Amino acid sequence: MKKVVTFGELLLRLSPPNSLKFPQAKAFEANYGGGEFNVAVSLVNYGIPTNFVTRLPENYLGNCARMEVKKMGVGFENILQGGDRLGVYFLENGAGVRASNVIYDRANSAISSIQPGMIDWKKIFQDAQWFHWSGVTAAISQSAAAVCLEAVIAAHEMGIPISCDLNYRSKLWKYGKEPKDIMPELLKYSTVILGDLDTAFFMLGDPKRDPDYQQIDTLTVLYDLIFKKCPSLKYMGTTIRNSVNASHQKIGGVLYDGKKIYATALKDVNAVVDRVGSGDAFMGGLIYGLLKKDNQEALDFAVAACCLKHTIFGDYNLASLDEVEKLASGDSSGKVVR
Amino acid sequence: MKKVVTFGELLLRLSPPNSLKFPQAKAFEANYGGGEFNVAVSLVNYGIPTNFVTRLPENYLGNCARMEVKKMGVGFENILQGGDRLGVYFLENGAGVRASNVIYDRANSAISSIQPGMIDWKKIFQDAQWFHWSGVTAAISQSAAAVCLEAVIAAHEMGIPISCDLNYRSKLWKYGKEPKDIMPELLKYSTVILGDLDTAFFMLGDPKRDPDYQQIDTLTVLYDLIFKKCPSLKYMGTTIRNSVNASHQKIGGVLYDGKKIYATALKDVNAVVDRVGSGDAFMGGLIYGLLKKDNQEALDFAVAACCLKHTIFGDYNLASLDEVEKLASGDSSGKVVR
Amino acid sequence: MKKVVTFGELLLRLSPPNSLKFPQAKAFEANYGGGEFNVAVSLVNYGIPTNFVTRLPENYLGNCARMEVKKMGVGFENILQGGDRLGVYFLENGAGVRASNVIYDRANSAISSIQPGMIDWKKIFQDAQWFHWSGVTAAISQSAAAVCLEAVIAAHEMGIPISCDLNYRSKLWKYGKEPKDIMPELLKYSTVILGDLDTAFFMLGDPKRDPDYQQIDTLTVLYDLIFKKCPSLKYMGTTIRNSVNASHQKIGGVLYDGKKIYATALKDVNAVVDRVGSGDAFMGGLIYGLLKKDNQEALDFAVAACCLKHTIFGDYNLASLDEVEKLASGDSSGKVVR
Amino acid sequence: MKKVVTFGELLLRLSPPNSLKFPQAKAFEANYGGGEFNVAVSLVNYGIPTNFVTRLPENYLGNCARMEVKKMGVGFENILQGGDRLGVYFLENGAGVRASNVIYDRANSAISSIQPGMIDWKKIFQDAQWFHWSGVTAAISQSAAAVCLEAVIAAHEMGIPISCDLNYRSKLWKYGKEPKDIMPELLKYSTVILGDLDTAFFMLGDPKRDPDYQQIDTLTVLYDLIFKKCPSLKYMGTTIRNSVNASHQKIGGVLYDGKKIYATALKDVNAVVDRVGSGDAFMGGLIYGLLKKDNQEALDFAVAACCLKHTIFGDYNLASLDEVEKLASGDSSGKVVR
Amino acid sequence: MKKVVTFGELLLRLSPPNSLKFPQAKAFEANYGGGEFNVAVSLVNYGIPTNFVTRLPENYLGNCARMEVKKMGVGFENILQGGDRLGVYFLENGAGVRASNVIYDRANSAISSIQPGMIDWKKIFQDAQWFHWSGVTAAISQSAAAVCLEAVIAAHEMGIPISCDLNYRSKLWKYGKEPKDIMPELLKYSTVILGDLDTAFFMLGDPKRDPDYQQIDTLTVLYDLIFKKCPSLKYMGTTIRNSVNASHQKIGGVLYDGKKIYATALKDVNAVVDRVGSGDAFMGGLIYGLLKKDNQEALDFAVAACCLKHTIFGDYNLASLDEVEKLASGDSSGKVVR
Amino acid sequence: MKKVVTFGELLLRLSPPNSLKFPQAKAFEANYGGGEFNVAVSLVNYGIPTNFVTRLPENYLGNCARMEVKKMGVGFENILQGGDRLGVYFLENGAGVRASNVIYDRANSAISSIQPGMIDWKKIFQDAQWFHWSGVTAAISQSAAAVCLEAVIAAHEMGIPISCDLNYRSKLWKYGKEPKDIMPELLKYSTVILGDLDTAFFMLGDPKRDPDYQQIDTLTVLYDLIFKKCPSLKYMGTTIRNSVNASHQKIGGVLYDGKKIYATALKDVNAVVDRVGSGDAFMGGLIYGLLKKDNQEALDFAVAACCLKHTIFGDYNLASLDEVEKLASGDSSGKVVR
Repeated sequence: MKKVVTFGELLLRLSPPNSLKFPQAKAFEANYGGGEFNVAVSLVNYGIPTNFVTRLPENYLGNCARMEVKKMGVGFENILQGGDRLGVYFLENGAGVRASNVIYDRANSAISSIQPGMIDWKKIFQDAQWFHWSGVTAAISQSAAAVCLEAVIAAHEMGIPISCDLNYRSKLWKYGKEPKDIMPELLKYSTVILGDLDTAFFMLGDPKRDPDYQQIDTLTVLYDLIFKKCPSLKYMGTTIRNSVNASHQKIGGVLYDGKKIYATALKDVNAVVDRVGSGDAFMGGLIYGLLKKDNQEALDFAVAACCLKHTIFGDYNLASLDEVEKLASGDSSGKVVR
Repeated sequence: MKKVVTFGELLLRLSPPNSLKFPQAKAFEANYGGGEFNVAVSLVNYGIPTNFVTRLPENYLGNCARMEVKKMGVGFENILQGGDRLGVYFLENGAGVRASNVIYDRANSAISSIQPGMIDWKKIFQDAQWFHWSGVTAAISQSAAAVCLEAVIAAHEMGIPISCDLNYRSKLWKYGKEPKDIMPELLKYSTVILGDLDTAFFMLGDPKRDPDYQQIDTLTVLYDLIFKKCPSLKYMGTTIRNSVNASHQKIGGVLYDGKKIYATALKDVNAVVDRVGSGDAFMGGLIYGLLKKDNQEALDFAVAACCLKHTIFGDYNLASLDEVEKLASGDSSGKVVR
Repeated sequence: MKKVVTFGELLLRLSPPNSLKFPQAKAFEANYGGGEFNVAVSLVNYGIPTNFVTRLPENYLGNCARMEVKKMGVGFENILQGGDRLGVYFLENGAGVRASNVIYDRANSAISSIQPGMIDWKKIFQDAQWFHWSGVTAAISQSAAAVCLEAVIAAHEMGIPISCDLNYRSKLWKYGKEPKDIMPELLKYSTVILGDLDTAFFMLGDPKRDPDYQQIDTLTVLYDLIFKKCPSLKYMGTTIRNSVNASHQKIGGVLYDGKKIYATALKDVNAVVDRVGSGDAFMGGLIYGLLKKDNQEALDFAVAACCLKHTIFGDYNLASLDEVEKLASGDSSGKVVR
Repeated sequence: MKKVVTFGELLLRLSPPNSLKFPQAKAFEANYGGGEFNVAVSLVNYGIPTNFVTRLPENYLGNCARMEVKKMGVGFENILQGGDRLGVYFLENGAGVRASNVIYDRANSAISSIQPGMIDWKKIFQDAQWFHWSGVTAAISQSAAAVCLEAVIAAHEMGIPISCDLNYRSKLWKYGKEPKDIMPELLKYSTVILGDLDTAFFMLGDPKRDPDYQQIDTLTVLYDLIFKKCPSLKYMGTTIRNSVNASHQKIGGVLYDGKKIYATALKDVNAVVDRVGSGDAFMGGLIYGLLKKDNQEALDFAVAACCLKHTIFGDYNLASLDEVEKLASGDSSGKVVR
Repeated sequence: MKKVVTFGELLLRLSPPNSLKFPQAKAFEANYGGGEFNVAVSLVNYGIPTNFVTRLPENYLGNCARMEVKKMGVGFENILQGGDRLGVYFLENGAGVRASNVIYDRANSAISSIQPGMIDWKKIFQDAQWFHWSGVTAAISQSAAAVCLEAVIAAHEMGIPISCDLNYRSKLWKYGKEPKDIMPELLKYSTVILGDLDTAFFMLGDPKRDPDYQQIDTLTVLYDLIFKKCPSLKYMGTTIRNSVNASHQKIGGVLYDGKKIYATALKDVNAVVDRVGSGDAFMGGLIYGLLKKDNQEALDFAVAACCLKHTIFGDYNLASLDEVEKLASGDSSGKVVR
Repeated sequence: MKKVVTFGELLLRLSPPNSLKFPQAKAFEANYGGGEFNVAVSLVNYGIPTNFVTRLPENYLGNCARMEVKKMGVGFENILQGGDRLGVYFLENGAGVRASNVIYDRANSAISSIQPGMIDWKKIFQDAQWFHWSGVTAAISQSAAAVCLEAVIAAHEMGIPISCDLNYRSKLWKYGKEPKDIMPELLKYSTVILGDLDTAFFMLGDPKRDPDYQQIDTLTVLYDLIFKKCPSLKYMGTTIRNSVNASHQKIGGVLYDGKKIYATALKDVNAVVDRVGSGDAFMGGLIYGLLKKDNQEALDFAVAACCLKHTIFGDYNLASLDEVEKLASGDSSGKVVR
């Protein structure tokens, strides 16, 4: 089977156990994750061979990150070695009415000093069926954004569908450029965009428009504005997230295929074990769905994947294909399988 | 006081901590439990002397299991030693919309090779006031089922009330017999049966009938079908479980005494700490209730015990008599006792 | 800035991890806390310099308790050394419908043998702007109650506002006196009293009156009865707690300033991580609010602080000023800050 | 088989994990132990039925201690309930050149308020073959010492051999009496005394004499002084401990039967896991040996038991009869048994 | 580079943490290991591509074992799926004078029911440079031994060097055959045999001869007896292990190439973290050494690898090539690398 | 009492628990430490008020580091806030023949961008009696070295003794200067230098000379070379470390006062719990000794402090004054204090 290729950063996440706050922690739980790797893990779990492209430092921690890629069965042959350090982020998990806190410590990471020409995208895409990247990578450094551009152009030229998760992080974008300076050129090759409309307008340099996801008609109009700027675009989707509190989320989704809006009812996710990476789980589910299912089923599958991720510790979704299908089909009873 | 006697398997349960999934676990939490032992622990906690009969291998793990029996104050004098191995099961605890998974690894356990004649039931029942067993033991092996038959006949002849928890496990019953080949003969001596009607009909070889537990009249008709097949039957009860998700259950119960249906309102159990053994907690509560209380109170007590078990880690119910009485009386506030 | 001074006991709290019951615990998590210290930590976290007065034994555990005071940035210069032992309490954390259990082991603690004259209150209050104590200290021993009296008289004479959290604990008060013998004299100097009306009437030796916190008019009448007995009283407040179960609380508050009742809607706190010290968090929030805000805002802030404490492990509130303000302003979404 | 009876306190021991110092500990590991209980566990592990007599408070922690007695298979029928609290001690485990620290928190424990007449010694000793107590119990309170006296007189009158471990703890003996006021009367009924000669002379009110355990002849003379004061004495023994550092001990023993000195070579114990209770392991081994073996074998067995205890976490010796026999026979290779 | 191929069982190892004994354990640490997998991990760590052949059950635990293979970078393409269960063993780690205990629970594991014909050895060996197996696999079942025979014949015919670690386990060999019935035929194709001479004579059905590894001349004579029976044999080696106690080992090695004895001085290994798999680490080091170094260097490397394994938790050796080379060259100072 | 002032970096140290290697770690234990802070903690533990000067980032992790300073009772009033990130280092603890590994991740830490003029040294030194810094700070960045120069000039002008621990770290010194370019100017104001002679010659740009610490006469000659370059120098000392392996060290020391060599015998440190910071413990002990004792006693105290640190987890020495005095006086028996 041809492969999905994802490109982005792999980070070490350090978080106090049991929802402790930072000053209470005598230890930090260590996980390796990152948006595009998380998508890759989802796809591999669903049976889609997936290749993850990144750059890791040539030290022991870089090797640990690489071992995690291997363990999950994700293709690791195109991971570059080099750069100064592994990116790190510290996560204080919230609970109930208390929000989570994130402290990024990812400046000067290996991927931030990646340069155009380092990756042979043509070769990587030879046996590829899909390319996925996200706005986080473009936010890290000018050269990382330039490598994103190399990648989307190469994929576009080779006729490979491209998905992008907009993933706006205001604490990044520190290298002197704003999203609107960088993202329009990158997004215009997209086949699938994941993100809410506000973020899309912001990244494309458009005025804010406050979409109402209940209003199908006006929604279509807004989506069409994005479709006009991205001539290859076939789908734009978004997660709908109603945050009751840090432990209780209501999750749904919307998908537009240029003609029709698909939507789902909100699913209760309570209690949340780990919310990080739930958007990536949605993305992974959506790519799988678009490869294997019709539009409504694809969206239902993505929402179910996103919900399940909330119940799983760590950055990526370990739910199996069966578990996602069961929830997508409406069974959320959580009955013991025995 | 005369003793309750329970008979069944005692297993080592291994489960990843903190609701981790199996591939995330670097350690498994170890608990010793099993349906009929769990019932025994409940009864001892309520002040009823109880004797547990099983067979454990003559090795260090078998001794650990035996120590657990002792620690809980359950009678251990009639535990046989022998056989090849301690039965094991692996439990991946679910959370929210994610279900738990169970992997049984109990083939060739000590109790599976137990043989008729190994246990002197007449002697054990001399100071007994009750005998409890379950359908799980009959499902393990032909010889284990034969020992169940020895036991129920001995108890019946000595006039000792017999309770059976149907406990159907489709992953067991691998020795070439189906429940309908084995269970009718075993169940016909029962004084109390716990289980839903569908399972009872299935085990008795009857057609499926889809009971509606809200419809008292038709329910009575269905129960009477069971009563006809089990001439000693005085009570049949069932747990009513409405599974919102793995962390949120609504629990109630129904009890029929051959004349009247008793029922309870559903109680919210949220959040669930550990659902395993909650049926055994119901059974333990019901036996206690039938020994000490009127029918409605017995059912209320059983439901409260079942609810409390969901909040307690491990296989058996550590809630005290006071804690169960308080919840049975309607106080679920969880206020700190200080 | 002038300091808040709090006076009370600092205890070692020992609790089984992960809501285990006592017989399951192979380890107890160790926290140092106590009502008046907890109030001090809250205030320091909000930027108010606070001085904690207590007595700790001159041994290694006493030093550990002192280190905790230092770590939290609370003033420790007036902690006396002496006495036999550090007070201890064992906490079995409940979950869902299962309540928590507390076993006090604080008899003969260092503070129980404190004597009048040991503390130079006049000196301590020289740069003080507020004094806080609670009914727990008066419940420990006759001499501890006498030191409370020294303190409130000194504060009163020096014109320093005095707050008291009534904090009735029936398991204490073992030295031959009842609250009504001791508390009226102590409470009459109060500027602020925290506690429900029933407790206040009980401690003042008044008949029980069953206040209805929904009935503003009758409530005012009842509050005025307290105000009459405590001529310096400016505020009386109470936490409103609707306990769905141990994991789910609904929290609000009422404040009366001698003229008007202020109240808040109930906030859902679900899931509760650790309920202990949530009243102290309310008290800390209320003192901060009364120093910095108008009455309604002060109450809102106190309720938000109380809610957040429920999500934080340990005895005291580690929520930052920003976190409390955000929740007080109505944002309970628990969104990740990144 | 007739039973050994031991009498003493059962404590909760709280120790930081992994040899952390107290200020580093966020949790304390919880063990239940005490010298005379530890002896009982050893004997049960060797197949000798043993009955432990103590007094435990009627609360949840008292029940946990009782469960530990049950789990270990030690007789618990004669444990009294009552008193205020469970005795506690805090242990900071040393390592290498760093010594361990103990903080006793056992004042006012349940056993300290035990009174003569509470225990029916005549009944307990009816099926006893041996009685063991220690100097620690006599050190706790006047009334506890009085109960020791009751016990040794009853045992003596019934012809039951009595062993005493001198176990001098300078931090106890706080009730206004010195060992020399109490111990001579208690010791004079002894059949076996365990302790070094200096301690024995001190407890008997004799002058200090500095025994040299290498000098057999002078040693005999010194031992005979003790034998003269204790007319029933048949054996006096002592552990020889050469402490290289907290992690490395050299252990041997000496035994005198009134005629001859028996001794062993020193065994290297490196690394030490937990030194606490190693004297009790020696005592347990010696009682077993004196019941089952000749004098030299008894001593070898006691020394081997003592050595093995150092490698086992907690207060009591979990080494099996086989493990002790193997080491006593000279095999210290620690080879994997598989 | 051509690959090394190893064939054997992959087990789940469950061991109490911190050298606790089984009855103290509330959790078991989980590791996946097995002799021939351990050898594969060593080789991959030294840069030799290695392919591991085994059979794992088609369940979640089987998948976890497979993930471990992937994580370590070992080739997993020839792992069969099928059979009933994953083999398990329970390990109680010793310390000092206390030995470790192993409880095997591997009967009816996936590999025990492997059948000749299931593995296409010819294909697997196409790009192989070495084949490694061990006596443990032949001990599991008749059919597993038959598959070993298939493998060695195929390797022999294709001219691939074959190494065998004799690895006698008396608790296995339960299927009605003794080593002498099975091993001579299997061993005769060997290029390298690892094991002590006594074991080799026992497995080959020869009389016991008590080799003295210090006596070079008589040793040569004994080795030549083995060489005569195994016409392809080029090397026979053995680990020399002087067990001071479970925490302190002295490790050396002997290697014979048909002409000359190579030997090393004993190295002190103190303290031992985990002794399991140290023989496999020797084997892995020896294969690497024979592929890359001269005979004496190969032996030194194998001994150093074996020593380092003792300091590493788990079944396999995580020491890097640099770490082994450094120790092989004589630097055992353990200085911090910074 | 006047204060000691120390200046340097405070880092977050992350290390796998239980001597696991990095790829085995699911969590990292978190400690805050750094050479000059470690010296400060030692001094405070011995009763010397000490002020720590550093720069921490204005984020949550910076606050956690600050809390650690407070907890230990070290003066924190002169800690600057600013810069980008908290320096981090990852430590893989060795065991036995396996060395520890350190991965520095401290580039761009808060202190690396400190600038001359940010710290008011004159004010800080007003109530100071000693200033301590180390070569690590000069190795971080040009501006950090410049701040060191400010500090030593200010201290020198105010007549405050200055100690420097040379602490050469080859992985630092990355800003384009070598030690010999920077250190001679910094060292020339020193009153006390700690470090071996080779390092001193290297840092002063002198040729290598291979000192033999056993040869007192030639040693004096070599020390005098350093004394000539540092006109204020009164003492130069060094730790003597004989590394048997990572778990077994032999520690001694040498001190020269310009006239006479003082030395100690080597002390066995076995088993090592945590070697990091043992040099800082020596330094802290030496400063204390030079302030309070004669030269030989000062050295003995420093060596004892260094030895004890090896038995204590974390970066700094928690041994009390009593513990160090006891070991310095020759008692290394590690007997339980009870």
